[in-house]
Amino acid sequence: MERLVVIGGVAAGLSAASAAKRLKGSSMDVSVFEKSGYISYGACSEPYFISGMLTAPEDLIEITPEEFEKKRSIPIYRKHEVVNIDYQDGYVDVLDLINGKSSRHAFDYLMIATGAKGKNLGVPGEDLEGVNTLRTVEDAIRIQKSAVSGKEVVICGGGYIGLEMAEAFVELGKKVTILKKSSQMLLNFDPEMSEIVEEEVRSKGVVIETGVDILSFEGDGRVERVVTNKGDFKADSVLIAKGASPNVDLANKIGVKLGETGAIAVDRHQRTSLGRVYSGGDCVEAYHMVLGKPAYIPLGTTANKAGRVAGENIGGLSTEFRGIVGTAVSKIFDLEVARTGLSLKEAGAAGLDAYAINIRHRSRSKHYVGGWPITVQFTTEKETKRLLGAQMIGREGAALRINVLAAALYSGMTVEDVYRLDLGYAPAFAPAWDPILIAANKARKG
Amino acid sequence: MERLVVIGGVAAGLSAASAAKRLKGSSMDVSVFEKSGYISYGACSEPYFISGMLTAPEDLIEITPEEFEKKRSIPIYRKHEVVNIDYQDGYVDVLDLINGKSSRHAFDYLMIATGAKGKNLGVPGEDLEGVNTLRTVEDAIRIQKSAVSGKEVVICGGGYIGLEMAEAFVELGKKVTILKKSSQMLLNFDPEMSEIVEEEVRSKGVVIETGVDILSFEGDGRVERVVTNKGDFKADSVLIAKGASPNVDLANKIGVKLGETGAIAVDRHQRTSLGRVYSGGDCVEAYHMVLGKPAYIPLGTTANKAGRVAGENIGGLSTEFRGIVGTAVSKIFDLEVARTGLSLKEAGAAGLDAYAINIRHRSRSKHYVGGWPITVQFTTEKETKRLLGAQMIGREGAALRINVLAAALYSGMTVEDVYRLDLGYAPAFAPAWDPILIAANKARKG
Repeated sequence: MERLVVIGGVAAGLSAASAAKRLKGSSMDVSVFEKSGYISYGACSEPYFISGMLTAPEDLIEITPEEFEKKRSIPIYRKHEVVNIDYQDGYVDVLDLINGKSSRHAFDYLMIATGAKGKNLGVPGEDLEGVNTLRTVEDAIRIQKSAVSGKEVVICGGGYIGLEMAEAFVELGKKVTILKKSSQMLLNFDPEMSEIVEEEVRSKGVVIETGVDILSFEGDGRVERVVTNKGDFKADSVLIAKGASPNVDLANKIGVKLGETGAIAVDRHQRTSLGRVYSGGDCVEAYHMVLGKPAYIPLGTTANKAGRVAGENIGGLSTEFRGIVGTAVSKIFDLEVARTGLSLKEAGAAGLDAYAINIRHRSRSKHYVGGWPITVQFTTEKETKRLLGAQMIGREGAALRINVLAAALYSGMTVEDVYRLDLGYAPAFAPAWDPILIAANKARKG
Repeated sequence: MERLVVIGGVAAGLSAASAAKRLKGSSMDVSVFEKSGYISYGACSEPYFISGMLTAPEDLIEITPEEFEKKRSIPIYRKHEVVNIDYQDGYVDVLDLINGKSSRHAFDYLMIATGAKGKNLGVPGEDLEGVNTLRTVEDAIRIQKSAVSGKEVVICGGGYIGLEMAEAFVELGKKVTILKKSSQMLLNFDPEMSEIVEEEVRSKGVVIETGVDILSFEGDGRVERVVTNKGDFKADSVLIAKGASPNVDLANKIGVKLGETGAIAVDRHQRTSLGRVYSGGDCVEAYHMVLGKPAYIPLGTTANKAGRVAGENIGGLSTEFRGIVGTAVSKIFDLEVARTGLSLKEAGAAGLDAYAINIRHRSRSKHYVGGWPITVQFTTEKETKRLLGAQMIGREGAALRINVLAAALYSGMTVEDVYRLDLGYAPAFAPAWDPILIAANKARKG
């Protein structure tokens, strides 16, 4: 009987546990330890729970612990924190956060799926009540409760989570202010694209302040204001949304190698530098096929895939996670915001000689009611005309269209190739020249 | 001064005219002759004009003759039929259908964009008033007028146009009956997929009769009934929608070679067997990248592309139309119906050893309101696991998703490749495992 211990019960951890168990059956004993009170939750949907679109925390759960245990024959230990790993002797020490008792569990294989935590600002007052980051279901519940009282919400950060949460708070009737250091929202978009989003967000009544250094949070037990280089901002609650940093403490302690990104380094089998230790999810890097090296882009879909690959390899297969191309989509108020590959800025930072082109076209045929403009930006490598990335923003048809370019990046297409694609046309869905083809035509000439 | 004569003023003809003129400017004299009274119309939108969604025939027009002449400096002759071509001496004879006068126009290059006509049944009574096919704007206007009187509409044929028109007639409050010879609608889908469409169409009150041989149309001047092997069907108007056949008479007369499909054969530059004669649009074949040989799949988007390539080559460039992969999408009542590549049946007919898999999954995350099931079918080559085709049907997210697989077919991906794609995930748009990936996972194992 082999034993697999999985640390973390969300996307990567449960995918690994399921895959290994499916392959090994009763010859592998699998246990999952999850520090929080919830497993298998869709963290990306937390804004929709907070906004009230979803009515209960349970609406965030993909599969309940009971269902999972029954279906997979894998015990789930919630509110159990792995506090120590002994790699040499092959065991973990686990603290039951409810009753304070410790237990020891032996392993042959270890899956580290410890996820990420919201970055802190490292300023005074961050521990005040009403100052939150959003990762776990408990965070979401706390923010939702916190938002009931008070009118003024300050969001520190203008990335996906900051903007999705701005939408949620506006839905709740709050007055929302976004404070940002940089002049640009959504830093993984090029400025001309992120401006479209900024305009949408402002049009919904959200105040955006840029060039802001946050100095402290102040209040009497509960936050009352945010103190910055640009003055004080009244705040009944604060969301810090400055991105995520990987939870690597446990891995670090046993000598698992980290990559240049600061996240856990893994090979294509999701194996860490320690032979019997696998990892996946928001605590690891992933190979970026356009960059040709690992990148840290923590996303739920990547976590699912990497977790499954880890589990398959633990289960005796030799499968590979081929990597990512940097695809990400988000709904921000009435906009679909989508990107894949490299922005022009990112291409430049990677030492690639590239140019950007930008077009605006209808999402549907003009001979059909409805339809909205889509803006499409392509990043193209100068010498080879290889597509390096794409960004798309529009009220409809951007989120699913980006996947065509994700496929193009996967197979290393030139923009000429993209221009030659046989994309579907019907008036209700697209113009005869799809915006993708119009952008590709401009890019191949550019 | 070189002279280009273009026969046909819709997608392919105007694309060729524009491209050649853009390249050659004042050194090329371009004339466009169009038999009908309209140019540059979106034939795919005609059902939406008939249904009343679009209010005037002008809503079908991409660019008016006046705008086109002004923008491009290309004269447009509407209601002018090219009745004779002399290839040796390089001229066409043109009949002005309004005043009956003939004129002769010399050419150095000829672009044949004569399009297609609706197939006839070849039974008595097809010329009765109220029995129509749908190709031109004039057809659409006639059908719309014809539909005003009477309640009972019979549609002969269950392809895209038949079904889109069934929707249009239901919108107009008609009682619609579809008569079909074969037991299956949408013959370029596999049966289990077309059944989903059939169920949708029936649920909207449309009567579908299969195994029907139409023997004649009867009525006193105007059609009153359809006589079939299964009895008579009352009909106040009839639409014959049995597909299209290429208009090749003119081309044939001057010895332009036709392909095995019966449509005009062209090389990758859209050049016919006669050196100075180019062709594009619904009268030509296109190279099918999955089949590896020409196919006749007349579609507006292909016409635009092939026309542009013809014009570029006439204009002195050497560009290639790389071909099609058989992508087609349609809105049929509340369904998005999409396909690309080969169905299992088509793969079999092409001598490919293939299998089909089929999955049903949510179009969006379960942690988001809304969302509908999508059914996805993949055709996979047995030995190589190469993706040969895909079909998708659902209330949302099918039409744009099919393009990912069109890109996959273009680059010859295996289903393993498709499974490894980095597709976008956000609760509002897709589940963490996109239906495409779930289908690919099943296909790679299948």
